[in-house]
Order: sequence, then structure tokens, then C-alpha cells
Amino acid sequence: MKKVAVIMGSDSDLPLVKACAEKLKELGIEYEMHIMSAHRTPGAVSEFASSAYERGFGVIIAAAGKAAHLGGFIAAHTTLPVIGIPLKSSALDGLDALLATVQMPSGIPVATVAIDGCANAAILAAQMLALSEPELHERLEKMRRDMSEAVRKKDAALQAAEPNA
Amino acid sequence: MKKVAVIMGSDSDLPLVKACAEKLKELGIEYEMHIMSAHRTPGAVSEFASSAYERGFGVIIAAAGKAAHLGGFIAAHTTLPVIGIPLKSSALDGLDALLATVQMPSGIPVATVAIDGCANAAILAAQMLALSEPELHERLEKMRRDMSEAVRKKDAALQAAEPNA
Amino acid sequence: MKKVAVIMGSDSDLPLVKACAEKLKELGIEYEMHIMSAHRTPGAVSEFASSAYERGFGVIIAAAGKAAHLGGFIAAHTTLPVIGIPLKSSALDGLDALLATVQMPSGIPVATVAIDGCANAAILAAQMLALSEPELHERLEKMRRDMSEAVRKKDAALQAAEPNA
Amino acid sequence: MKKVAVIMGSDSDLPLVKACAEKLKELGIEYEMHIMSAHRTPGAVSEFASSAYERGFGVIIAAAGKAAHLGGFIAAHTTLPVIGIPLKSSALDGLDALLATVQMPSGIPVATVAIDGCANAAILAAQMLALSEPELHERLEKMRRDMSEAVRKKDAALQAAEPNA
Amino acid sequence: MKKVAVIMGSDSDLPLVKACAEKLKELGIEYEMHIMSAHRTPGAVSEFASSAYERGFGVIIAAAGKAAHLGGFIAAHTTLPVIGIPLKSSALDGLDALLATVQMPSGIPVATVAIDGCANAAILAAQMLALSEPELHERLEKMRRDMSEAVRKKDAALQAAEPNA
Amino acid sequence: MKKVAVIMGSDSDLPLVKACAEKLKELGIEYEMHIMSAHRTPGAVSEFASSAYERGFGVIIAAAGKAAHLGGFIAAHTTLPVIGIPLKSSALDGLDALLATVQMPSGIPVATVAIDGCANAAILAAQMLALSEPELHERLEKMRRDMSEAVRKKDAALQAAEPNA
Amino acid sequence: MKKVAVIMGSDSDLPLVKACAEKLKELGIEYEMHIMSAHRTPGAVSEFASSAYERGFGVIIAAAGKAAHLGGFIAAHTTLPVIGIPLKSSALDGLDALLATVQMPSGIPVATVAIDGCANAAILAAQMLALSEPELHERLEKMRRDMSEAVRKKDAALQAAEPNA
Amino acid sequence: MKKVAVIMGSDSDLPLVKACAEKLKELGIEYEMHIMSAHRTPGAVSEFASSAYERGFGVIIAAAGKAAHLGGFIAAHTTLPVIGIPLKSSALDGLDALLATVQMPSGIPVATVAIDGCANAAILAAQMLALSEPELHERLEKMRRDMSEAVRKKDAALQAAEPNA
Repeated sequence: MKKVAVIMGSDSDLPLVKACAEKLKELGIEYEMHIMSAHRTPGAVSEFASSAYERGFGVIIAAAGKAAHLGGFIAAHTTLPVIGIPLKSSALDGLDALLATVQMPSGIPVATVAIDGCANAAILAAQMLALSEPELHERLEKMRRDMSEAVRKKDAALQAAEPNA
Repeated sequence: MKKVAVIMGSDSDLPLVKACAEKLKELGIEYEMHIMSAHRTPGAVSEFASSAYERGFGVIIAAAGKAAHLGGFIAAHTTLPVIGIPLKSSALDGLDALLATVQMPSGIPVATVAIDGCANAAILAAQMLALSEPELHERLEKMRRDMSEAVRKKDAALQAAEPNA
Repeated sequence: MKKVAVIMGSDSDLPLVKACAEKLKELGIEYEMHIMSAHRTPGAVSEFASSAYERGFGVIIAAAGKAAHLGGFIAAHTTLPVIGIPLKSSALDGLDALLATVQMPSGIPVATVAIDGCANAAILAAQMLALSEPELHERLEKMRRDMSEAVRKKDAALQAAEPNA
Repeated sequence: MKKVAVIMGSDSDLPLVKACAEKLKELGIEYEMHIMSAHRTPGAVSEFASSAYERGFGVIIAAAGKAAHLGGFIAAHTTLPVIGIPLKSSALDGLDALLATVQMPSGIPVATVAIDGCANAAILAAQMLALSEPELHERLEKMRRDMSEAVRKKDAALQAAEPNA
Repeated sequence: MKKVAVIMGSDSDLPLVKACAEKLKELGIEYEMHIMSAHRTPGAVSEFASSAYERGFGVIIAAAGKAAHLGGFIAAHTTLPVIGIPLKSSALDGLDALLATVQMPSGIPVATVAIDGCANAAILAAQMLALSEPELHERLEKMRRDMSEAVRKKDAALQAAEPNA
Repeated sequence: MKKVAVIMGSDSDLPLVKACAEKLKELGIEYEMHIMSAHRTPGAVSEFASSAYERGFGVIIAAAGKAAHLGGFIAAHTTLPVIGIPLKSSALDGLDALLATVQMPSGIPVATVAIDGCANAAILAAQMLALSEPELHERLEKMRRDMSEAVRKKDAALQAAEPNA
Repeated sequence: MKKVAVIMGSDSDLPLVKACAEKLKELGIEYEMHIMSAHRTPGAVSEFASSAYERGFGVIIAAAGKAAHLGGFIAAHTTLPVIGIPLKSSALDGLDALLATVQMPSGIPVATVAIDGCANAAILAAQMLALSEPELHERLEKMRRDMSEAVRKKDAALQAAEPNA
Repeated sequence: MKKVAVIMGSDSDLPLVKACAEKLKELGIEYEMHIMSAHRTPGAVSEFASSAYERGFGVIIAAAGKAAHLGGFIAAHTTLPVIGIPLKSSALDGLDALLATVQMPSGIPVATVAIDGCANAAILAAQMLALSEPELHERLEKMRRDMSEAVRKKDAALQAAEPNA
């Protein structure tokens, strides 16, 4: 199975972005996590993105805040699917990062998830890889069923606790 | 190769969404295009989404405006990757559709592209399918090179037309 | 008198949504409160909504944050009036939930109240039921008079405390 | 069956608001339509709202743009359910009217529909009245089925026109 | 000299609105401060506003949050100048209150100051009254000179503390 | 009676700002209208504002778009009340001008009216002058009654035209 | 004198960006104008930016719309001052481009001008170059005086045309 | 080498703005830091700006919040490049300050950096001065290389700490 790369623009994003790595691990997906900045180490980013396909990566996840160029920058250097996580880390609560990530010009999409949506980025990456990995597909289906079950249990607990008026 | 489904919420979106179908055709990807509404035909949508995997679909693209629930609604019924296109068709110029599409809760991602980003949705779907389709990967690489070449030619034409001061 | 259903997308919303249940109780309205997610348990939601009329519900209140599809999802499965409470629980302080709840397409309205407006959702539900329940109407009128009286008392207290310049 | 009042703040809103009246007529609901301004004829509005219950109204619909106070102003004078339609008619494309309509303080809800959502306001009013009018409930159910059917037909037409790739 | 009325929609606004009263006192302007709600005690508000001119008021200041109708409601009942203070007290940080206060329709202006701009509302009221009160004009001029002087002193202190590089 | 100054930042604003002058004329208020730019002719603006009181002005109206500094710039040079009209003339539809006009720091208020609210600026100026001009007060009262009457007539015409269902 | 580079992301921006080139010409500044895309020809952009200093450029102007990464991308490859022009060309009227241009992370500034502010970008570039070019400084001073003079003339014309009331 | 002026509108901004001065010091650039308000001490600001060129300043940095006129006000009085730092210090989190700083009219640019982007303002000023100061250019290049190196080290540390799955 191809690997997933998780790139963040700054080490201050690590506590948040970890949730992405953990979800990948939970789903049995091999990943590399890197700190690389579109603005401070553009060479490292373009080098990484340009060679990612050859090096066995299937999906690249990019997490960045403010004028979040990281996802678009990576997408400009590869035709692998790129997932962008806009981070909230700014005065504007991530609206800037969301628009800078999602409003890509024609030809170079970035698959954008919610502000701070780190776990969802991992799940989306898994859904892509699962297209040719039936076992991973099954794991995603199970995760979904478990999620449903958890909500149903919470509702049942609420019904038990609150015999309605 | 798996098929792509392109779902739009209303037939008034067809002129815009066609660009998505055309790009898929250009990339040699088989697709089905449907008009199905999360609010007016929820049964049709959930039925389609629930059975899409079994019926050979690999990616589902959902285009909707205003309180754009279509992408999330589909994603709730499948673990296939779902791509959301927020449409501009509202008083708020698509900001409502963008937020209603991208801000999905943990567990159910929708891969969101730019407002009215129909061609990009097709390219993103292709990138996902290309993970296990080397030939499609090659077509995407070529499309990217052609795009680069086109920009370079336009720059060359500008240089020829405008001998700078 | 018909019952009111109060549905929330996540148990983390319970502390906030409780205010809704309390107001219903105060007004003598029977209710059921449920945790059901448009995205994690769509089947439970559509089943609940589809059968609500038959099971004696008159109004359904849906509280959700972020890409708040819950109200619209329920409204798609019933012609009972649906009240949507956009919750603030997101990076964008509920603007996303507000737009995702209120900007419904033609044909499927969601009666939207203010961000985190849980008590108002209960009052609005009561106003709807009161159309055929004169006694409830009277209770609402009394609640309104009490509210007025409380404000007038606060003003009187202020006048007493602050003999103006 | 109780009547519905449709109030608009200015006669310039009439072309838009007419859609509301037409939908009420289509649903067989008696209505009165008025031009009354929260700011220019506050006395007329408060008088109308205060006596609406006694005069046989069940729901009041208020359509206004800019600093849209009409819905809240009416709601302050009655405990009947009040539906607010924020109109787009401003430099800010109705965002001002939306916030001025929906963000009501605790105790006085306004059931807000989408910007320019005139037909939906009528349907929502009908849903409220239908709580005690089984025949109207049936008409709403039929309207919903017709709406579904129309979407399904459009999809079928699309399938016929576009034998997919 | 005419009096100023300071009206707030809720007693929870008192800690903030006090700054307005204090500034009026500092400028030697007689005022009354009231808690009155456009939505909870509309009768009290319209009565107060309608009779304010006869009772010797020159300016009415209205402070309200969320769907802040108070300023517009008062302005609808008097031709005295009305100053609106949008309060921050909401999920949307006062943007809703600002738009609901300032975007008044033609014919009924509300002189809007900054979000939470309580002191400025008092100064603006004083500027209006000073049009026919030369002594108050002089006090405003002095206050302005003192303000300038304070800034100049702070700059001088900074220069002394920080002998620049 | 004191005069009113109407200052606009650019002659391209004249067609819009004329409505302000016309309303002043209608109310019998003497005015001067000037094109002066906070950024292009700051000296002219500060000179005008600094001497306005001595030259018999009572109120200064400032109309400007984009980063609308004109109102604040004038207010910084006089203690006369300054009314700011944010103009829509920008990519952001006047939201920039609104915030740049209304969000003044403590000490220097600008009485802000709606985006493009030129007539309201004139009425607000008249309300201020009327504090010491009983005849002008009477004219404002009459204008208000006429306005009410006009709305009532429109409603009556609507009732005549539309014998309700 | 060093040259200025004017880079735009797409040839569709040319009609707008021309104003920038014309202003540079008017100020006697040598420039090169290029079509280069951060996303479609990233190699060309990074090559250009990396070598700009050696090739005699002093300032780089970047004009781009939507998720406008061009300015930041260039700034990441040079320590020359980079001026960003956010273009309006999107569903969100340039708010996306503005935030994507201005909200740069610490270490890599982009000097951002107004949405569609092409002439101002040229003037800003000239102001930078003028730091070591007294003659250019003089030209800028003259341009400023001419601008002032033009406004004064327009005001004089208005005074002549409109003998005030 | 020319000096840089750092002007802030209020002494409460000092803790934030200090970062700007420190970065200038680090880059070996002489500066003056002042507290001057566009609204409270307009005379001091215009005097400072008008004479800055003669007094050896090359760049003026202006930091202000809310209706942030300081940058534009300074730019109106000099043709030196002016850098604007919009400060977050308001209910609207700096969006008001950003728009009031960046949306300048044609002819008078303000080079705007990110909200609270104090260090970047200093770097941008250095980039401007470096156009004629090769040594400063070298220092900027070194700072950039150090920044790159720091990111690379953090990535290496992450790789060491986290032997990927």
C-alpha cells in the first residue's frame, strides 16, 4: 500500500497535526510526518512533492495556517492528490487559511477539509487509498459502523437518564 | 477503472457542472451524471450513495449551492471519497455553500474544492483513481505539462508583444 | 397536545441544548430528547423524521454546529415544521452553522433561530403548538408579561440606585 | 383555518414577496398582505401585531432588508409565531438583514428562512397551521411528493439525453 | 441644557454602558439611564421615545447587542438624534449588532458608533448638545487638548526610556 | 442657523452624494459641498475642519469609500459632530468603508450611517441642528408624518388592488 | 536604477495589470511584465524570483486572484521586497485573494496593496526605488502635487457650478 | 543608511510593536519609535510625516487597530514608503484594521502586512533599505538561510523522535 505524507508548516502545529498521524496509524497506513514550510524551506517542499510519487507516496496531507500556501504549493509540484487542512492559528480564526487553501485556480485542486480537521484529513486519505485496497475499505466501513454504534449508545444512555416529561 | 458519479442538486446547476463531466471525458474516465437533491429526493441520494461502491463507483462528486448539504449527505452513506463543489448560486456568492460543504464534523470528510470549481473536482477525482491506474497518472502528468506549456507560451507572446521599457 | 422532539448532533452539545428541554418543561410541553447525527447515524435520523408525524410529534428541533446539516436533513424527511439551532461550536463561531441551517433551498424550510438560541427554539415550538392549544397560548402570554415585568423591575431598581445627575 | 399575514417593509419589496402570497394561495391558505414599516409606521405595525391573534391570524410573515427589524418588532407585540424573510436589497447582499432577523435575544424568537426565501416562508407557515389541519398536512405531503417526482423526472431526462461515457 | 437618555436593552449590559454615563457626568451633562428592551418592553420604549422631546431630552443613546433593534426602534418614535452603540455580546462579536444598528432604511437614521463604543457615544451626544451650548463646546475642546497632551506625554516618556539605536 | 458641510473624497462620488445636498435643501438648511480628500489634499481637509466652527458650521458630513478615513480625519480636527457615510464603491461593497468609518478609537466619534446612506446623513444633521431650532424640529416632524402617510397610502392601494384570498 | 518585475498569474489578468505597467512607465521606471503561475509554472516562478536580484531587479510585483499564492511564493525565493496585488477575480470578490496575500507568516512579508490596486503597486515600487534615486523621489513628489492640484480644481469647479443654498 | 520610524497609535500597542523594533535592531537598522495618534495628535503625525524625508528617514512603519487610519494618514503626508501593521485589538479581531489599512485609494499606497505582523514589517522595511545597502541585503539573505536551517533542524528532530509507522 502506498504511504501518506503529512506535512506541516511549523513545529508549533505538531500538537494539532498529531491527530492526523494517530488516525492513520489506527487505520494501518504507513506515513511520514514532516515539518516543511512553503515560505521558509520552499526547496525542501518542492523537492519532496516532486519526488513523492516515485518514493511510494499516494497522498500528501498539508496542514498550514494564515496565508496557507502549503497545500497549493505541494499540489503545484505533483499530480498526487493533495489534502489541505486549514489551521485556525491566526487572528482570523482560520478563515484566511480556509480560503487560501480551497480557492485554488483551475487545474490544480487541493482537497480541503474543515478548519483544524486533522482526523478527517487522515480518513479522506484512507478513503483514497482504499480505492485499490479492499482490506482498508473494510477497515473504513468498520470504523464507520463503530462510530454509528457509539452515537446510538449515547442516545440510549440519554434515554435511560432522562425519562422524558 | 472505477467510475465517477457527478451529482448535482438541481437541474439549474447543469450548465456549470457540465465542465466537470467534460474534464472527466477528456481524461478518459467513465462517469454517470445525476440530478438528485439532498432535500427533495433524499431517498434517491441515500440509495445511490449506499450502493455506489457495489456498483463500481470509485469517487462521488457533489455540486450544490446555498445550504449545500449534498456532499455531506452522500458522505454519510458511503466510505468512498466524496468531493464537494460549493456553487455560487446564492445571495451570499457561495460562502454559505463553501462553509456548509467543508466544515464537516470529525469522521465524515468531504474533499472540498473552490466555489464553482467544477473542472478541479474532476481532476481531483482523476488523481484519486490514478493511485492504482498508472496510465491515468500519465495522462494527468501530461495534462499538467500541457498546462505549463500553455502558460509559458502566453508569457512568450507577451514578451514579443511588449518590448519592455 | 403533540410532542416536541429535540435532536442534537453530538452529546457534547447536551449542556447547551438542555436549556431547550428546560424551557419546554416550563411551558408544560411533552418532549423527547435525542442524540442523532445527520452524518454518523443518518439512518436513525431519517427513520425518526419520517415517522415523527405518526408518532405524535408536532415540531422537531435540531441543534448542530459546523456544517450543520441536521435541521435540513430532518426537514427533508418530514413536513412537520423543523426548527434549527445553529451551534457556536466551531472555529468560525457558528457563522458556518447559521448559514448551513438557514440558507435552505426552495421547498424545504428550516425555521432558524439565533446561534446557540436554545431557549428561543423551545418558545418558537410552543408558539406553533399554541395555534391549536389556547391554554398554551395563555401560558406564552403570561411568560411574556412576566418577562416584561422583570425588565421593568430592573429599570426601577436602576432608577432607585442611580439618582441621575 | 387561521389566516396568515404577510407584511413587507416597503412597496419596492412587492415583486419578490409576491411569491410568498402565491404559495399560500396554492396551498389554500387565506392571507392578508400589507406594506408596513417598523421604522416609518411603527404604530401601524404594533397595532396590527398586537391584535392579530384576536383577528384570526395564526402566523405573521415579515419581509425586510438592511437593518431588518420588522420581524423582531412584530414578534415583540405578539406570541404568535413570526417568520422573518431577510431580503437581499442592500449593499451587503442581505447578510445584514439575515443577522438583524435571526440573532434575536432570548424570549422573542423569529423563525428565520433563507435570504429572499419567500416561498419557503409560506411553506413554513403552512407547516405550522397544518399541525391542527390534517387536510393542509395532506396538501403539504402531496406538494413534497410532487417536488420529488419533478426532480426524479429531470434526472431521468438527463439520463436519456446523456448516455454516459 | 437638554438631557441625554441612555437606554440599554438588558441589565447585563450595565457594566459596559456605565462608561457612557460616566463620560456624560464628566462633561457636566444631565442624563437618565434606563433598562428597556425593544423586544421585551416595546411599550415602555415607544412611550419613552415618543415623549422624550417634550420631557426635555436632546439626545437618546441606545446600547444593544445581537439583533440590535433598540436604536432603530427608538428612532422610529422620535425625531431627536439617536445614537446607537452596537454591543459585542454575541457569538458573532458584535458584527450582527453593528449591521442591525447602522444599516437603517432611508428616513430614519441612527448615528452609530464603534462596537462597545460607550464613551464615544457620550462624546458624540455632547458634541450635538454643544451646538447651542458654548460652554460645553469649550469643555469638549479642553477634553480634546488634554487627550492630545496625554498622548504627547506618553511619547515623550517612550523617548526618554528608549534612547533609540 | 448653523451651516452643514458635505465633504466627499472624490468627484466620482458626486452623483450619490447629491442626494444628501438635496435633502438638506428640502429641509431649508444652508450647506457647502466640497471635494476634499483625506489622502490627496490632507492640508485642505485639516484646514477646513479646524476652522469650520469659527466659520459657522454646525455639522460636517463626510462621504468616502474603501479605506474611508475622511470622517475620522475630519473628526480629529474639530469637536463639531461629524457624520460619516461609508460608500459602496469598492470590491468589498462598502464593508471596508463601513468598518473604517465606524470603528473609531475612544475620544473621537464619527456618527456613522448606512452604506450609501446619503439622505439619512442629511436628516441626522438636521436632527442635530434642530436641538436649538424649533422650526426645523417642526419640519422634521412633518417630514416624518408625511413619510408615514406615504407608507399608509401604499398599503391602502395594495389592499384595494389585492382583495385577499 | 533597478528594474521592476510585474508578474501576473494568468493572461486574463492582463487588462487590469496593465495599469501597473503604465504607471511605472509614467514614472520612468524600467520593468518586465510576465505571465507566470505559482501553480502551473512553479519552476519558472522560483527560477525568476531566485535570480531576480542578480539580474538587476529591485522590486517584484505579483498580481493574483482566488487563493493568491503568487506573492508569497515569490517572496519565499528572494529577499527583494515583493508587492502583492490581490485581484477581485473570484466568487468572493477578492477577499480570498487579499487574505491569501497579506496574512504571510513571520519571516516572509508581502507588501500588500488594495484589491485590484494595480496603480498603487507601481507607486509603492517607485517609492522603494526612490530611496536611493533622488530624481525619482522628485517625480513622486510632483505626481503627488499634481494629484492634490487636480482635486483642488475639481472642488473649485464644484463651487463654481453649485452656488450653495 | 536611512532610518526607520515606527509609529504606534497608542501606548497599549507597545508590547506588540516592540517585536518590530527588536527585529530592526537585530538587522542593524537605526530607528525611532513613537506614540502618535492619527486622531488624537494629528498635528504631530502630519508634522512628523511631512519632515521625515528631510530628517533622514527612509521608511515609516505605522501600527494601529480598529479604524486604523494611521498608515494612510502618514502616507498622505510623505512619498516615503509607508508600511501598515493592522492590529488585532478590537471586537472584530483586526479585520477592521486590515481593511482600513490596505484598501487605500489610488495614488496613496500603504504596504500592508499581516494582522499583528510586527516582525514582518521590520523585515519589509529592511528589504526596502537593502535596495541600496548591499551589506543589509547580505544580512537579510543570511537571516533567510538561518530561518531555513532552523526549519530543517526541526524536521530532522521530528524524524529522529518519530520513527514512522
